[in-house]
Amino acid sequence: MALIIKKFGGTSLATPSLIMHLAKRVAAEVKSGNKVVVVVSAMGKTTNELISMAKQITNQPEEREMDMLLTAGERISMSLFSMSLNFLNVKAYSFTGSQVGIITTEEHTNAKILSVKGERLLSALNEGITPIIAGFQGVSGSKEVTTLGRGGSDTTAVALAAFLKADLCEIYSDVDGVFTIDPRINSGARLINQISYEEMLIMAHMGSKVLHPRSVEIAERYNIRLAVKPSFNEGDGTMITNAENIESVSVRGISTRQNLALVNLKTPDSNIVSLMKKLNSSNLNIELFITKTSEIISVVVEQDKVNDLLSCTEDACTSVSINNDIAIVSFIGTGVSTDKDVLGKILSITEKYSADVFGFFTDKLVLSIVTKQPYVEKISNEAAKAFQLIG
Amino acid sequence: MALIIKKFGGTSLATPSLIMHLAKRVAAEVKSGNKVVVVVSAMGKTTNELISMAKQITNQPEEREMDMLLTAGERISMSLFSMSLNFLNVKAYSFTGSQVGIITTEEHTNAKILSVKGERLLSALNEGITPIIAGFQGVSGSKEVTTLGRGGSDTTAVALAAFLKADLCEIYSDVDGVFTIDPRINSGARLINQISYEEMLIMAHMGSKVLHPRSVEIAERYNIRLAVKPSFNEGDGTMITNAENIESVSVRGISTRQNLALVNLKTPDSNIVSLMKKLNSSNLNIELFITKTSEIISVVVEQDKVNDLLSCTEDACTSVSINNDIAIVSFIGTGVSTDKDVLGKILSITEKYSADVFGFFTDKLVLSIVTKQPYVEKISNEAAKAFQLIG
Repeated sequence: MALIIKKFGGTSLATPSLIMHLAKRVAAEVKSGNKVVVVVSAMGKTTNELISMAKQITNQPEEREMDMLLTAGERISMSLFSMSLNFLNVKAYSFTGSQVGIITTEEHTNAKILSVKGERLLSALNEGITPIIAGFQGVSGSKEVTTLGRGGSDTTAVALAAFLKADLCEIYSDVDGVFTIDPRINSGARLINQISYEEMLIMAHMGSKVLHPRSVEIAERYNIRLAVKPSFNEGDGTMITNAENIESVSVRGISTRQNLALVNLKTPDSNIVSLMKKLNSSNLNIELFITKTSEIISVVVEQDKVNDLLSCTEDACTSVSINNDIAIVSFIGTGVSTDKDVLGKILSITEKYSADVFGFFTDKLVLSIVTKQPYVEKISNEAAKAFQLIG
Repeated sequence: MALIIKKFGGTSLATPSLIMHLAKRVAAEVKSGNKVVVVVSAMGKTTNELISMAKQITNQPEEREMDMLLTAGERISMSLFSMSLNFLNVKAYSFTGSQVGIITTEEHTNAKILSVKGERLLSALNEGITPIIAGFQGVSGSKEVTTLGRGGSDTTAVALAAFLKADLCEIYSDVDGVFTIDPRINSGARLINQISYEEMLIMAHMGSKVLHPRSVEIAERYNIRLAVKPSFNEGDGTMITNAENIESVSVRGISTRQNLALVNLKTPDSNIVSLMKKLNSSNLNIELFITKTSEIISVVVEQDKVNDLLSCTEDACTSVSINNDIAIVSFIGTGVSTDKDVLGKILSITEKYSADVFGFFTDKLVLSIVTKQPYVEKISNEAAKAFQLIG
């Protein structure tokens, strides 16, 4: 008998009949003798609809109230999921993040999980009840409702897997697993059967939206077997595990991030550290830093966050220039920092297309090129061919 | 400085811009120096939409999960209301029923409030924060989320008014107040300026949907000044207060209930008490009992609850007959049990239209006629004229 966490994403839960479809899969697993804990996101576009109502009221809703608003989403999906399982004669109870003891920091809209109390979860499991847990949400020490930010339901699933020492944590979505390259860019993209935590972490950071990076970090720290699986077919998906368990390859995959902006900020007093501190204390996700000289730092952020960035740094900067339509192409694998051939091929491809390049960044498992949007497809398609990622 | 509870119904909160409209009224009250506690229902048709999703999954969803599902509704409206007030520079915090300590019985979908803990409510008020409270919901002793049944938000408002010893509890809706007769039946219906708790309680029981009866009971018990007011204009509405404060009239108003069924149940063993106990332990709202003989009891229920009634009594009955399209016309006022003229007029009107009458019921403040649907308008319009309720 195994204990399995199954997390279902919003697209997979978009309608009551899709919920019932997934509940049947869970029921089959339970009836086969395994224990299952289900973690759900909000249904379909619910979260976006709730955000849009808030925006009709104010462009700057209080983060506390946004958390209260958005947590209605999983409340709806979890109760409908529980009703479906009960209908299928599998006794189920839904629990909010607060009820199941997901204790977080106080940081509204982007809280971190501090601990899992989980008493009600354990007693439900002991009584043979299948718990349906609201992903994405928790409760702070001061009893305020919090949310974990985008992709937070993955984090909930992995944190519960760690708490329960689950045998497996499965993340279900509308894609078949993790691909060597975004299938929307190259239809020859191949499904990756196995990938190491580290490689997956970088893929996630660098644009593969299948898993949230934080969930991969927690999985690695607690050595949780993590799988990305399809909601709508029976495929095996992608297994994320320790590097020693799998064959290493030079380039495992290519991730791309688009709709970015490169912002050059000039500080009057050359105090880069204080500028960095300002950025760090904001809620902005800074993709990359490029320190050009001691006076200018270049920052890559999502294009629609540029105004937020500017308002958080305006006190500290004398001049600003903005480059829109920036993209990052990242090559992930053990070879990118050790195999001279890999870098050689990438450089040749970049040269062949005369791509504007604003920076190269390399780390143990990743090589990233900051370039302009129009070069993304050309570079990544040609590289996918060169590194045999399609076929 | 007064402390005022303001409860807003779902129709009044149907869109973000309607919420903002009401938030402006609350902001004006706060800025005038009063303290306000806001209680909200779910927006517009949210509750019905959630119920319809549950019905797509199963016709008999678990009541525990229904409560979890439906409480998402007020969560959305309260956070949007709080955002609106904050936008208007009135510091506001939203709280769920559980957060604000509405402790209820364990009875899912129809729980009763046992007590109000209210610590977070008090500390918010002390800090000058306007609390926005989810109506309709609470938490049981075993920490399960519960709901108070239809109209439960009125009950939340009045229970909070009692707990806080509020100076006034205002129930806002899309009608101007309590009318002498349903304005959809007679457009000459007059707004009642003042009505006693007892009269209002009977009006509410007998079909006036403006206030939930339980909320009137609590208001009377704790002597809370209760007002029914319009959300969309500045009218004074109806004040519900002690009988000694207001002029008594023979007939204050007429209430009608339609879409009822009269069900005759025959017990084999003449054990009416055990049949009544079965009915009483069900979740059905029984409108009236008519004991015909020692073997048959006639029960009036909502037409769409007849099947529920039959399934709860099937063990105990040998035969059943059902009369659909039943309606009850009730005359409320101090005169109905004391003034022979009142009963005389009502009898003449009933006779004039040759109405089918299945029963007359009278109590201190009410006289009800059980009749068929087609006679409702004729009887009530003619009586409204006779008792000067229109004009």
